[in-house]
Amino acid sequence: MAGTDAVSVRVFSLNCWGIRYLSKHCPQRYAMIGELLSKEEHDIVLLQEVWSEKDYLYLKKTLACSHPHSHYFKSGVIGSGLAIFSKHRIHDTFLYRYSLNGYPYMAHHGDWFGGKAVGLAIINIGSQTANVYVTHLHAEYCREKDSYLPHRVVQAWELQQFIRHTSAGADVVILGGDLNMHPQDLGNRLLRSYTGLRDSYLETAKFDGCEDGITLIADNPFTNKKELIPFEKGIRIDYILFKGSSEIDIHCDSMSTTKGSVSGHPFPYSDHEALTAELRLESVKAGGDRQSKTQAAGSGKLAELVDIVTEARTEVKVGLHCAERMRYTAARTGVMGLALLLLELAIAAVPWFAMGAEQPFPRTSFYLLAALCFAILLTTTLLYIFYTMELKSLQGAEDQMRLAVGSLQEKLRGFPLAQPHNAARKPPEGQEPSAFDSEE
Amino acid sequence: MAGTDAVSVRVFSLNCWGIRYLSKHCPQRYAMIGELLSKEEHDIVLLQEVWSEKDYLYLKKTLACSHPHSHYFKSGVIGSGLAIFSKHRIHDTFLYRYSLNGYPYMAHHGDWFGGKAVGLAIINIGSQTANVYVTHLHAEYCREKDSYLPHRVVQAWELQQFIRHTSAGADVVILGGDLNMHPQDLGNRLLRSYTGLRDSYLETAKFDGCEDGITLIADNPFTNKKELIPFEKGIRIDYILFKGSSEIDIHCDSMSTTKGSVSGHPFPYSDHEALTAELRLESVKAGGDRQSKTQAAGSGKLAELVDIVTEARTEVKVGLHCAERMRYTAARTGVMGLALLLLELAIAAVPWFAMGAEQPFPRTSFYLLAALCFAILLTTTLLYIFYTMELKSLQGAEDQMRLAVGSLQEKLRGFPLAQPHNAARKPPEGQEPSAFDSEE
Repeated sequence: MAGTDAVSVRVFSLNCWGIRYLSKHCPQRYAMIGELLSKEEHDIVLLQEVWSEKDYLYLKKTLACSHPHSHYFKSGVIGSGLAIFSKHRIHDTFLYRYSLNGYPYMAHHGDWFGGKAVGLAIINIGSQTANVYVTHLHAEYCREKDSYLPHRVVQAWELQQFIRHTSAGADVVILGGDLNMHPQDLGNRLLRSYTGLRDSYLETAKFDGCEDGITLIADNPFTNKKELIPFEKGIRIDYILFKGSSEIDIHCDSMSTTKGSVSGHPFPYSDHEALTAELRLESVKAGGDRQSKTQAAGSGKLAELVDIVTEARTEVKVGLHCAERMRYTAARTGVMGLALLLLELAIAAVPWFAMGAEQPFPRTSFYLLAALCFAILLTTTLLYIFYTMELKSLQGAEDQMRLAVGSLQEKLRGFPLAQPHNAARKPPEGQEPSAFDSEE
Repeated sequence: MAGTDAVSVRVFSLNCWGIRYLSKHCPQRYAMIGELLSKEEHDIVLLQEVWSEKDYLYLKKTLACSHPHSHYFKSGVIGSGLAIFSKHRIHDTFLYRYSLNGYPYMAHHGDWFGGKAVGLAIINIGSQTANVYVTHLHAEYCREKDSYLPHRVVQAWELQQFIRHTSAGADVVILGGDLNMHPQDLGNRLLRSYTGLRDSYLETAKFDGCEDGITLIADNPFTNKKELIPFEKGIRIDYILFKGSSEIDIHCDSMSTTKGSVSGHPFPYSDHEALTAELRLESVKAGGDRQSKTQAAGSGKLAELVDIVTEARTEVKVGLHCAERMRYTAARTGVMGLALLLLELAIAAVPWFAMGAEQPFPRTSFYLLAALCFAILLTTTLLYIFYTMELKSLQGAEDQMRLAVGSLQEKLRGFPLAQPHNAARKPPEGQEPSAFDSEE
């Protein structure tokens, strides 16, 4: 590690609501965002919903001096909407596309077309390696009857997997984005408990922003107030999370959000509020103090994690049940379409064979009905394929969760011999992995 | 690390060719595979093309004593076909689905429906953490005119990214599977150069198997000899690759393949040959000898890697060009379908308005033509969406490759100051990352 001097890193995150020709005042808002960013000169800027590459290129040009390094993550039909700008060089990037992301026929919700994903950029800040993640999960359109909940839980599961597995070599981990989850939502607890990521809003002593840190506020002129009910003032769904490593301690010195209106401008930056966190990186001082503290807290946290993963598994099972029912409906409708087609062909063929060339079936109705049958067959086939893929992803996530619960319980039984999750992955020396229960 | 005693790990890999009701002698061959595995008791068994979960469950039951731990990776419509069996406990799993994997309308090739992916299982072998990867890339149906080459290159790119980014915490990395690439193919060179993985066939001093290590041999009764032309004897497309870490040295003591026929059985295990590698793990002895050797070799290897990534980028650009052309064709056909529909409506409407109720357009032809137009519109819309997604993935890979080349060239310029890739990722102390050229 470098010297003992602390390094300060300012991180910015904003959901830009950048649907060209649909989002209000899009070009003006991008100009405002560009102006803000080039003035503030944050170290790392994480943007979501930059749906048009042209807007990304506009920002890239505007921020050429303040943020010479950038990357735009592409996926789905429209793109992932994820972009990162950095004062420090980006050495490497990687994109993980979530296996589940809504339904293509729910075109008015549009999430499927966006190809939701988590982008990773590896950035060197001074002598430290920072793994910086930016993501945007599936939106919640109706909290009471949230049909996308299993998808979002699987996204949160894959997000924590991706972060855990890719961050072993990092000194610092930073995640920013629109998680579309309230602070105590299942997916959020899963993410934070499993990865050990800390919430900058909860960690900071100095906060300046909207009450309760809300980022989707009722006061914002672009927000639909009705959609926020029963949360009158608004909800907190955008986050900057972080964690250090065995060599680097990280603290959040201050945290702020925008508060809707922007002085000197007639409207805010976006329908979401922007977040800024000031993080301080410090080399860990030698001594076993940290290790023993983690050990003590580990057992309780592991038990909590087992509960959370079990809860997530239950939610995925609900999704599995639902997807199975939808696939069954698609199959049944398809079979009915096929039966109708065969029936029609039989009716048309019988008098033809029996009574010669006379055809009592009106031709127009015949062709219209046949076209309808073909349309039903095609649609249900496509739906059947889609639901089968959804089922495979849900089953895959459930399998992984079952294995994880088994492994965590194993660890819990071995406590305090086994080490907590966030420490090195290796079991204590010479301890052979035992097999109380077989996973899978 | 544990004591200085070497640990031996036997790894097995086989493409099982397990398409129920289509692959020849499927149940008998699974029985033979189960028998072999329970007798041989390899530490790690990596299987591909286990397309049916029932067959996986059969193997799981058969191997309950010899390999109590297992995982089946699910994705796509049919499944990924990937399975892993282990003598040692599997602690965690993760699946990465390749963003490109052929075309759904090429149903006779079937790759798209298989949802090709790379599965990761984290296994503790003694006191070492092993990251074990199993994968199966898109098949090559015609080497002279391989329309899937850009897809396979992107898969190889994503495979190396996944391995590099997820293996930082591992003591040992093992990859087994059917790469569908010859040893000197672009994707193979890309994978080995970027990750530092070593080929067990090339590394071992003791080899027992088919000539040149080929795994798809002409002598196999299930193989189509014509498809192997011009490689008369066969080709090598299945691999077991491995690498150690700064703490663990790894060597391949012996390597073997099956040779087609199996004594006591009328047919072989599969249309591919099975691979077995005996790896030996040893703790790295203290001393700077290893480090300096890597440093010396690093510069040349980096330059080679830059060339390979540039070559891959060119191949992806070819794919981009092709996908753009296909999308354009789909759009043009769609527009023509729409024009035909409008023309038809106009012809049908004109006499109706001008001459009263008389309709000169034959009703049957009218409806048939309209149905045809709708079918064209629907098909081209779906194709347009699919090609747009393909384009996004290709563009994304090309962007990442450009950034990687920039970053590698930067490293190369800083040589011998900067450290080689396989060592720790951190730049030397106090050295600020400079910015000769801006990526993206």
